Amino acid sequence: MNEFGGYDIEDLSVGMTATFAKTVTDADIVLIAGVSGDNNPVHVNEDYARKTIFKSRIAHGMLSACFISTAIGTRLPGPGAVYVSQSLRFKAPVRVGDTVTARVTVNEVMPEKKQVVLTTVCTVGDTVVVEGEALMMVSIQR
Amino acid sequence: MNEFGGYDIEDLSVGMTATFAKTVTDADIVLIAGVSGDNNPVHVNEDYARKTIFKSRIAHGMLSACFISTAIGTRLPGPGAVYVSQSLRFKAPVRVGDTVTARVTVNEVMPEKKQVVLTTVCTVGDTVVVEGEALMMVSIQR
Amino acid sequence: MNEFGGYDIEDLSVGMTATFAKTVTDADIVLIAGVSGDNNPVHVNEDYARKTIFKSRIAHGMLSACFISTAIGTRLPGPGAVYVSQSLRFKAPVRVGDTVTARVTVNEVMPEKKQVVLTTVCTVGDTVVVEGEALMMVSIQR
Amino acid sequence: MNEFGGYDIEDLSVGMTATFAKTVTDADIVLIAGVSGDNNPVHVNEDYARKTIFKSRIAHGMLSACFISTAIGTRLPGPGAVYVSQSLRFKAPVRVGDTVTARVTVNEVMPEKKQVVLTTVCTVGDTVVVEGEALMMVSIQR
Repeated sequence: MNEFGGYDIEDLSVGMTATFAKTVTDADIVLIAGVSGDNNPVHVNEDYARKTIFKSRIAHGMLSACFISTAIGTRLPGPGAVYVSQSLRFKAPVRVGDTVTARVTVNEVMPEKKQVVLTTVCTVGDTVVVEGEALMMVSIQR
Repeated sequence: MNEFGGYDIEDLSVGMTATFAKTVTDADIVLIAGVSGDNNPVHVNEDYARKTIFKSRIAHGMLSACFISTAIGTRLPGPGAVYVSQSLRFKAPVRVGDTVTARVTVNEVMPEKKQVVLTTVCTVGDTVVVEGEALMMVSIQR
Repeated sequence: MNEFGGYDIEDLSVGMTATFAKTVTDADIVLIAGVSGDNNPVHVNEDYARKTIFKSRIAHGMLSACFISTAIGTRLPGPGAVYVSQSLRFKAPVRVGDTVTARVTVNEVMPEKKQVVLTTVCTVGDTVVVEGEALMMVSIQR
Repeated sequence: MNEFGGYDIEDLSVGMTATFAKTVTDADIVLIAGVSGDNNPVHVNEDYARKTIFKSRIAHGMLSACFISTAIGTRLPGPGAVYVSQSLRFKAPVRVGDTVTARVTVNEVMPEKKQVVLTTVCTVGDTVVVEGEALMMVSIQR
């Protein structure tokens, strides 16, 4: 493990797993709207959302994607890893009050390329809300 | 176009394009760190970042992903569309002061499934920083 | 329409209308209190608010004014327009959970001055909460 | 003065004055964008702003209006007063780093209506950025 708590490529093996979980609040939605610029009414307008298939406001999908980034960037592999790519499949909505758990699991280690593949799944209770795969470069320190 | 300014599936055709652009500030990095929980030192610790291949702090990759979501959710197709999937390939870092332009372009329209494929590219000046593809479901209103 | 999605002065005609709507949450009240410094107890102190004619906390009047600014600055005339003046008459309180719709309607176009007058009304359901008039300068690009 | 530090109508006289001042930061702009939904590129996109008559990003005009509301709602008349109306004339832009001083001055007292008129001026250094007039109802306590 490096001095910032991140795993080096030689520390990683298939099956290692880590999570980050957070409860989504109205404040998160207001703030990600401010940072992103995304004021899609399905996120900020309850009257509109009620008329959609979701029946109430839903969180920004990228908020769950952010939780994946957090699990990866702060836990596994942690500091020293940087994104090459991420795929995201959105399976179910997240609402205010839901606690989203992002779980990342090492699926493949490529030591020669200093890269690692992780499966990335966000759940609310037993429901998968987002799933996908991350490819990370490890060891960005000079 | 629906009453909230979004395109219906029958309004969409290949080649239609839209952008959202925003200058990244320190405030964006603090706030997305707060919302996401992602305090990877490469984003928030200048001393650490100086020792990496990036030489200074870089923005969260998911921040650029958020701008794609904004271009899609507020412009094209706009309100009434919801994410099915998004792929993201991170090509170059974004730093404080950079203006990121997210451009989304309709690549395929599937009227029977009420779905549309868009290519999604984020640039800073002439440099591509993130690229990928979005699959959206259009017409979420009941 | 200009490249940022805003109307030029020659695109505008009397009767054109646009809306922006948002549900007010506690997070909005905390954040506008933080940004503005306005911690008037009628907004942030439920014990105090209960003893007023409003009987519970009310949102900052300027929050509804902000929604007018959003409808104008992002929809009609949109990017490229800048405020000359705005009048605001506060008719009824807004509370947490209310969805405020800001509607702006072109009332007069002055092409020689590159200015436009809009009537600006915020409603919650059928109740007018704020009404007034905006004078905008269009075409701020050099 | 009432128990919350606000003036009652009989405490007010023409010429009384109070200020609230705050330095505008990037964080204020991101947060008011989140609360309001106003991502007009003149506020959030430096590349765009450079091409306008302002030459760089400017703060939301309603941010200065918020500072007026703060001076009124927390200082003069303070808690117990509520907005009837506010007029706003925008005279000059406010930029990140500017310290805006909102000064409010009692201009007329109408004891029988429990209303007071204030002149409201925001300045940055010697430059007037916003000016207008507020009409407040005093004594909202039951």
